[in-house]
Amino acid sequence: MDHAGRLGRLRAGLDENNLDALLLTHLPNIRYLCGFTGSAAALMVAEHGCIIFTDGRYRTQAKEEVEGARIIIDRKSPAVAAAEWLAKQQSGSRPASLGIEPESIAASMRDRLAAILKRKARLRSAPPLVERARMVKDGDEIARIRRAVELGASLFRIARRKIRPGVSEVAVAAAMEYEARCSGAEGMSFPTILASGPRSAIVHGRASSARIPRRGFVVCDFGVILADYCSDRTRTVHVGRPSRETRQVYEAVQEAQQAAIAAVRPGVTAAEVDGAARRVLRKLKLARYFTHSTGHGLGLEIHEAPRLAMGQSQKLEPGMVITIEPGVYVPGRWGVRIEDVVVVTSSGCEVLTPTEKELVVI
Amino acid sequence: MDHAGRLGRLRAGLDENNLDALLLTHLPNIRYLCGFTGSAAALMVAEHGCIIFTDGRYRTQAKEEVEGARIIIDRKSPAVAAAEWLAKQQSGSRPASLGIEPESIAASMRDRLAAILKRKARLRSAPPLVERARMVKDGDEIARIRRAVELGASLFRIARRKIRPGVSEVAVAAAMEYEARCSGAEGMSFPTILASGPRSAIVHGRASSARIPRRGFVVCDFGVILADYCSDRTRTVHVGRPSRETRQVYEAVQEAQQAAIAAVRPGVTAAEVDGAARRVLRKLKLARYFTHSTGHGLGLEIHEAPRLAMGQSQKLEPGMVITIEPGVYVPGRWGVRIEDVVVVTSSGCEVLTPTEKELVVI
Repeated sequence: MDHAGRLGRLRAGLDENNLDALLLTHLPNIRYLCGFTGSAAALMVAEHGCIIFTDGRYRTQAKEEVEGARIIIDRKSPAVAAAEWLAKQQSGSRPASLGIEPESIAASMRDRLAAILKRKARLRSAPPLVERARMVKDGDEIARIRRAVELGASLFRIARRKIRPGVSEVAVAAAMEYEARCSGAEGMSFPTILASGPRSAIVHGRASSARIPRRGFVVCDFGVILADYCSDRTRTVHVGRPSRETRQVYEAVQEAQQAAIAAVRPGVTAAEVDGAARRVLRKLKLARYFTHSTGHGLGLEIHEAPRLAMGQSQKLEPGMVITIEPGVYVPGRWGVRIEDVVVVTSSGCEVLTPTEKELVVI
Repeated sequence: MDHAGRLGRLRAGLDENNLDALLLTHLPNIRYLCGFTGSAAALMVAEHGCIIFTDGRYRTQAKEEVEGARIIIDRKSPAVAAAEWLAKQQSGSRPASLGIEPESIAASMRDRLAAILKRKARLRSAPPLVERARMVKDGDEIARIRRAVELGASLFRIARRKIRPGVSEVAVAAAMEYEARCSGAEGMSFPTILASGPRSAIVHGRASSARIPRRGFVVCDFGVILADYCSDRTRTVHVGRPSRETRQVYEAVQEAQQAAIAAVRPGVTAAEVDGAARRVLRKLKLARYFTHSTGHGLGLEIHEAPRLAMGQSQKLEPGMVITIEPGVYVPGRWGVRIEDVVVVTSSGCEVLTPTEKELVVI
């Protein structure tokens, strides 16, 4: 991964944001910039160099993983260690301008840093510089996401084989997760959703001990983390013979998803893609059952910028990787969702796993 | 679970903390108080009642799960929805005193709430009222933790069977995790640590594709989430014949762990328990390789209060559930850690899985 380039571009951008340094506390941002994967760290980025602060548990791991930053091991909370370090360095009369990440730093930690740095530095809420950089993936990242998505896709074959009336949802999920691990996944990118029968109307219906009924939809929404990058995919299958109504609903969601995918191209806003899916469902009088947004970026995190929702003016750019996942849910009855990961290309988008989406009946 | 009692006690305590209401944003606290398990929520607790704010994805799930609070579904971020709701209610001349959780709310969110509530409410950093309540587990919670710990313990049998020279770390972890899922676990309570050979010196050495060498320690640190509650356990085994030195180190850690367990009883401080383990290792000239704290509380979260570390003055009380997990790590060579979960009783403590800890040689 191009850690040097990422850190370099960030450092080059400090000046135009009137920052002497930037203190990063959001762990995925730290991983993106210097490769560290531990659970406690703060990264100080300044024009003249970068320092990562972590604790004794990560001495060996940091040495192995970190690129482009000096490592300081400290018993204190990493952000506190960083602020104390900065306070010691600052001898000039002018207080430094230190950017922080206001969306990820706890309110109490900001207060604590301000107390440590009074007169030495002014804390400023930095714009989401790293999140913006992360939105557009480079070739290495897209290659990794592609592999994660391919592994994710292969798990659906297991789901199809395992889903049978009377089998518990969690037994299906267990088989999928085992396969993921045996294929090298670090883990799942979120708790596997396996929601059958009336539970399919629960948008985030994590696999439970409920048994799959003889007839009804089963929503399978799952993803892996492979070499740090996430996949995300939803397929909805039907156990038993679908009624005319359920088949129509499935086809409506399929059409909405296709319309959103067709809308993806550089220059289009995130809201326009969301609108494309919503328009199809509105025409079919199903829009009020579509209770979430159409998709989200993904990469090191399962949910990243951009958000494909109403009012989102972010324009799509080549290299962005997003999910397209409309759904309809009638509480107490059923739910359907279809989701793919697409990468924005110069002229439109590529669906990373172009597998069929016809209704699978088990 | 006694949601009504928990909410009632919290509401009764608002007054003495000079709070008209408390806005909870830390999801495990929300789960503890009203049972909601979704990924987006804010809970407003006031003397006259409680309201949970979540979004459309959780309409059905909230209705099924939430006890003791009214549900409001809103498209906005839950904390924002809660603040706007409060601003509308507040018609009196005196601004309300609204407690927030400063350790869990993002700095930017606090700013946003302050802007919404200006003149209507003053934001005050509340003491960790819910964390304090959660430290002491009730009978239902201890029963659940016991079951989680038992399931966790059973996974070590799988590890013993699977650990062989040439097998990848992740293959061992996959088998353990599969068994956990098949036994009803919602998932693992943290990424399974399986660190073999020189990797055993990496305190948080997540299972990797590395193959287990012919000789050396393998640290296995793993836990499950079962019915919402976490388990946590570490065993270190040795592949091949241990040298005299490695056997001595193992026995030193075992002795340190036993000393810490023996120190656990009501009224003792967290620091004293930590000190008991550290003293043994100091005597054996190994203290500088013990680079982390002796343990932590666990329950709905894998890491909760109290922290068993130097300087921690929190006194132990009956019903607290904590881990005891000293370790020694020589970078590039090897590491050893032994960990159990104990519950503080009226006269000492009970090790929840009193299994043998003699060095297992494979």
